[in-house]
Amino acid sequence: MQLPQSVRNVIEALAQLPSIGPRQATRLAFYLIGRGKNYIQTLSSDLKGLEKVKLCERCFFIHENAGALCDICGNSARKPDIIMVVEKETDLLSLENTGKFTGRYLIIGGNSKTGTLEEWQKLRLQSLKQFIEKEFAGQAQEIIIAFNPTSAGDFSAALIEKELKGFTKKISRLGRGLPTGGEIEFADDETLGSALERRG
Amino acid sequence: MQLPQSVRNVIEALAQLPSIGPRQATRLAFYLIGRGKNYIQTLSSDLKGLEKVKLCERCFFIHENAGALCDICGNSARKPDIIMVVEKETDLLSLENTGKFTGRYLIIGGNSKTGTLEEWQKLRLQSLKQFIEKEFAGQAQEIIIAFNPTSAGDFSAALIEKELKGFTKKISRLGRGLPTGGEIEFADDETLGSALERRG
Repeated sequence: MQLPQSVRNVIEALAQLPSIGPRQATRLAFYLIGRGKNYIQTLSSDLKGLEKVKLCERCFFIHENAGALCDICGNSARKPDIIMVVEKETDLLSLENTGKFTGRYLIIGGNSKTGTLEEWQKLRLQSLKQFIEKEFAGQAQEIIIAFNPTSAGDFSAALIEKELKGFTKKISRLGRGLPTGGEIEFADDETLGSALERRG
Repeated sequence: MQLPQSVRNVIEALAQLPSIGPRQATRLAFYLIGRGKNYIQTLSSDLKGLEKVKLCERCFFIHENAGALCDICGNSARKPDIIMVVEKETDLLSLENTGKFTGRYLIIGGNSKTGTLEEWQKLRLQSLKQFIEKEFAGQAQEIIIAFNPTSAGDFSAALIEKELKGFTKKISRLGRGLPTGGEIEFADDETLGSALERRG
């Protein structure tokens, strides 16, 4: 049976979102209709509010500031020459929540599946290199590559490291070892191996 | 760290949707921003399009027709006095896809967790009873209760059956037994028991 066009439009649009399939999209559409006009209007205008959001021209995190920089890059208390390269915005949020990092970021985007960087990712790296050349005479203090400790993450990290090693005095990765609260008995071999190698 | 208000609004709104938690809502918000203004505008106006959708005053399925009835209830080729009571719209869609049902529907809404019907569910039952009284002198030909074959579904079915048994010549449930393509060896006891009892 054919659903009304407006409902099919919404189902198609929702099914394009990551981790939402056509079945969940259909259920969501019916849920929205069931919640009524007011709710739909609010959601629709909330979404429209996202149009105001800009990407920081330095780290590519989101912001709504008047200038081109996000709250982190615009904060003069943060060290501009220690740069953490992260895959995605939610990783940046988790790292910020630790309150232990006082440098700045570069969001490089999802790990490449083809083993090469996308064109837009290359542009982001390029803009970081140019910034380092202009502001710090070609050498940042430290670049931290903060990718997931998975084989895909390791692979991408090696790629980024090759690109950036000429532009920094020190290049590092997030520490590996036992997660706090974990138990030695249940740690996998790789994790326990890293914990031994990097003991201290 | 504090995200811009417009982004927090969207995250809160998305996290209210069924089966979307705050983490997925955050990821979705960043995804939407990453897709850019055009995409956000389209999604926002697609959602606004849902405002035109109405609920059928007879079966409570969605429609955009000029009158008060949906395509099914407004279709004179469909028997008005055989009524299938379903829990939700997606169940109706699955049943319609079989092409084997020529009656009409009543969408009664999600199974009650408290063991009683919600006020709005009672109103839907009431409107069905009134329709049967007015159009068929108080007796429909058949009412089929098509709820999930789970204990919650069985419980709700018993509730609805009690409410409607005075308003129909026949009351029935969907058949239970082996699903087509299944294997006897792997069928659970309940299913195999039903298949034996309802053999034919």
